[in-house]
Amino acid sequence: MLHRLGESKLHHFYEGAGFQGRVGFGKWPAVLVIDLAKAWVDPAQTLGSDLSGVIRETVRILEKAREVRVPIAFTTMAFDNDLADLPSVLRAKTPHLAELTIGSDLVKLDPALKRDPRREPLIVKPRASAFFATNMLAILNGWRVDTCIIVGCSTSGCIRATAESSLNYGFHTIVPREAVGDRSATAHEANLFDIDARCGDVVGVEEVLSYLEGLQGQAAQRS
Amino acid sequence: MLHRLGESKLHHFYEGAGFQGRVGFGKWPAVLVIDLAKAWVDPAQTLGSDLSGVIRETVRILEKAREVRVPIAFTTMAFDNDLADLPSVLRAKTPHLAELTIGSDLVKLDPALKRDPRREPLIVKPRASAFFATNMLAILNGWRVDTCIIVGCSTSGCIRATAESSLNYGFHTIVPREAVGDRSATAHEANLFDIDARCGDVVGVEEVLSYLEGLQGQAAQRS
Amino acid sequence: MLHRLGESKLHHFYEGAGFQGRVGFGKWPAVLVIDLAKAWVDPAQTLGSDLSGVIRETVRILEKAREVRVPIAFTTMAFDNDLADLPSVLRAKTPHLAELTIGSDLVKLDPALKRDPRREPLIVKPRASAFFATNMLAILNGWRVDTCIIVGCSTSGCIRATAESSLNYGFHTIVPREAVGDRSATAHEANLFDIDARCGDVVGVEEVLSYLEGLQGQAAQRS
Amino acid sequence: MLHRLGESKLHHFYEGAGFQGRVGFGKWPAVLVIDLAKAWVDPAQTLGSDLSGVIRETVRILEKAREVRVPIAFTTMAFDNDLADLPSVLRAKTPHLAELTIGSDLVKLDPALKRDPRREPLIVKPRASAFFATNMLAILNGWRVDTCIIVGCSTSGCIRATAESSLNYGFHTIVPREAVGDRSATAHEANLFDIDARCGDVVGVEEVLSYLEGLQGQAAQRS
Repeated sequence: MLHRLGESKLHHFYEGAGFQGRVGFGKWPAVLVIDLAKAWVDPAQTLGSDLSGVIRETVRILEKAREVRVPIAFTTMAFDNDLADLPSVLRAKTPHLAELTIGSDLVKLDPALKRDPRREPLIVKPRASAFFATNMLAILNGWRVDTCIIVGCSTSGCIRATAESSLNYGFHTIVPREAVGDRSATAHEANLFDIDARCGDVVGVEEVLSYLEGLQGQAAQRS
Repeated sequence: MLHRLGESKLHHFYEGAGFQGRVGFGKWPAVLVIDLAKAWVDPAQTLGSDLSGVIRETVRILEKAREVRVPIAFTTMAFDNDLADLPSVLRAKTPHLAELTIGSDLVKLDPALKRDPRREPLIVKPRASAFFATNMLAILNGWRVDTCIIVGCSTSGCIRATAESSLNYGFHTIVPREAVGDRSATAHEANLFDIDARCGDVVGVEEVLSYLEGLQGQAAQRS
Repeated sequence: MLHRLGESKLHHFYEGAGFQGRVGFGKWPAVLVIDLAKAWVDPAQTLGSDLSGVIRETVRILEKAREVRVPIAFTTMAFDNDLADLPSVLRAKTPHLAELTIGSDLVKLDPALKRDPRREPLIVKPRASAFFATNMLAILNGWRVDTCIIVGCSTSGCIRATAESSLNYGFHTIVPREAVGDRSATAHEANLFDIDARCGDVVGVEEVLSYLEGLQGQAAQRS
Repeated sequence: MLHRLGESKLHHFYEGAGFQGRVGFGKWPAVLVIDLAKAWVDPAQTLGSDLSGVIRETVRILEKAREVRVPIAFTTMAFDNDLADLPSVLRAKTPHLAELTIGSDLVKLDPALKRDPRREPLIVKPRASAFFATNMLAILNGWRVDTCIIVGCSTSGCIRATAESSLNYGFHTIVPREAVGDRSATAHEANLFDIDARCGDVVGVEEVLSYLEGLQGQAAQRS
């Protein structure tokens, strides 16, 4: 792991080169819950690994977000049953995508997340970033948020891609370390490093919970 | 480095999970030369590191591409002199961007690349991906290419982001290992691993040169 | 109608100002069939009007496209049942969108189109342009097409927006006059004028059929 | 003009079909000034027409916006001197674009606008929409605006395309009728009709000035 390879030295190196600034939290956030669906969270599946800790920390964040009425969006990935909408190069590079068909069990969210369909949209995305070829950006703008708190999986794929898009579009981008996971611990650490250097602030879950707590009472004023 | 941490084991692990498929070369490519400008290639600069090997390999690819008349596009990053177009979160996270102003020496391409302004566009990009908030996609479509060969720097930033966009938009995505570089060897390796697993084929420069050589004579038929 | 207001004079005026160039057909097209679903084609619906002529001409184009194996994509518009993915400004401006929910009869394609789900993707779009927040662009790139033939409805809304996106992304953009329609004859004519001036060539259906006929035998070579 | 062709009847027709809702102003706007550069505002130029009234009304809005410290962005269109970044289909359809080269007099803003380069960015756009292939969206998000007030030219081209993008991304979209113009009165009216039906509220300049006046004192609280 990068940790073991002298991360603190690397940190100084990057900071000196003008990376790793602190962006901090903005005034009003959304929580984006990325791909916590059966295909990824069930270790018995091709793509799956044990993400029970990630789900547990995510649920803590969701409970607080619902309490203070901060908006929440979920994503999953799915393609047409006949895969006519899955470009050939994507299928060649990541053949696992061909299993992810609309309506299949694999693409269903983990029930522990308790999505409320009346106000928490589920965005079906065709790529790693939750913003690519989806309605996400307009939904976030509709909510007038300035901050994206990104949780779920995988750190080295959809979390990183979503964090980069979030920065690209000008959002304060926050990734709570314990609420994101990856099938590879190495890839997890390496990508948290890059995210923190380039896209968003990697922080602890407790810091996110405190921030959300501090928003208590503001939802009413905003609507 | 990931190499030392059992990369071959990791490779099997990812392949089993349906990653790391081979996409291969398509029928007609463009070469995208990312950010080989003074800010990055001059070790005396804040952002800079010794990328002389990357430039040398890039020049070999460019010479062959020009010989067979394959299209080439260059990028650099630059913002308004007053930085009114640099969003505050981006500036906070990566303060080095504030040095990159339009017309400054720092954003000028390395002269060894010998860009021909009559047919090799220079795209000024505001983010890591060469496709974000630029004209790149329409230019590539105008050229009717199906393949992007991506060279330059940095592997963990603009190369990875550009490779991901290239896949997102349906291009065969090729990253020649010796023609991309990074200020950190660790980040370089970790990101080549992710790119190869998720976005594009990481290959040797010789393989790219052979492919280009095989396109000899096709430019005339295409126009 | 613009026709009656001296369109020929207007044409000269625009041509003199450097608009209305002819782009022509490219080498390999896709047919994009926009929103020929019950909400729009059933005159009994809020949004509906009599588009039987448009459907008839579209079917002629589809039959020829299938014969020569040119790729086809369909669109419809639909939102979550709870409309959590319908931004408030969009809902305020065009309240009819709130009727268009996923799985409802209103968003189903007209059966006369005989979509083949194995190879003709159905793209559910949230906005006027078939390219906005959808997978369309990557699908078209995956097919290696350089031309979009755009049919369906409405000329003043989704056809115009799709034609503009198609040009933006560098495609030869073709709109067959009799295969697009609108609830308002005035808006239809005004927008065909703008499309022809700025985005794509407005031509007759016969010209499209001849072009497609000329592609006979090329599908095999391309795959 | 549509006005003369029974616009009131058309209005009822569209309203009944679920168009033309009122979106209204949001909480904090930006003013987007589209293409008021020499190529468009000098009647002696190929593209030009007399837009002195549009400039006068735009200046009134700008003065009020500066007084209350509402953010402002300007656009112009320009391509590389060698046009290597101008896709061939775009050049074929609108040959006038080939005159618009970076640094040329034609692409310079009208001096009456008195742009302040320290805080009012100038976005060089390659297409009609100010959002396509530009940094506009991230700049607006950086400003935390929820409303776009769109002025300039041409109503049937860049104004309409920008209004549609603004709606697509979830902004309250406002077009002050007297502050937008077109070389063709017919196209102007037809497009104002479509914009009002589908994208944004077309209102009088006085209504915009009153709204801006009401924001007095809020800039300080927002930063």
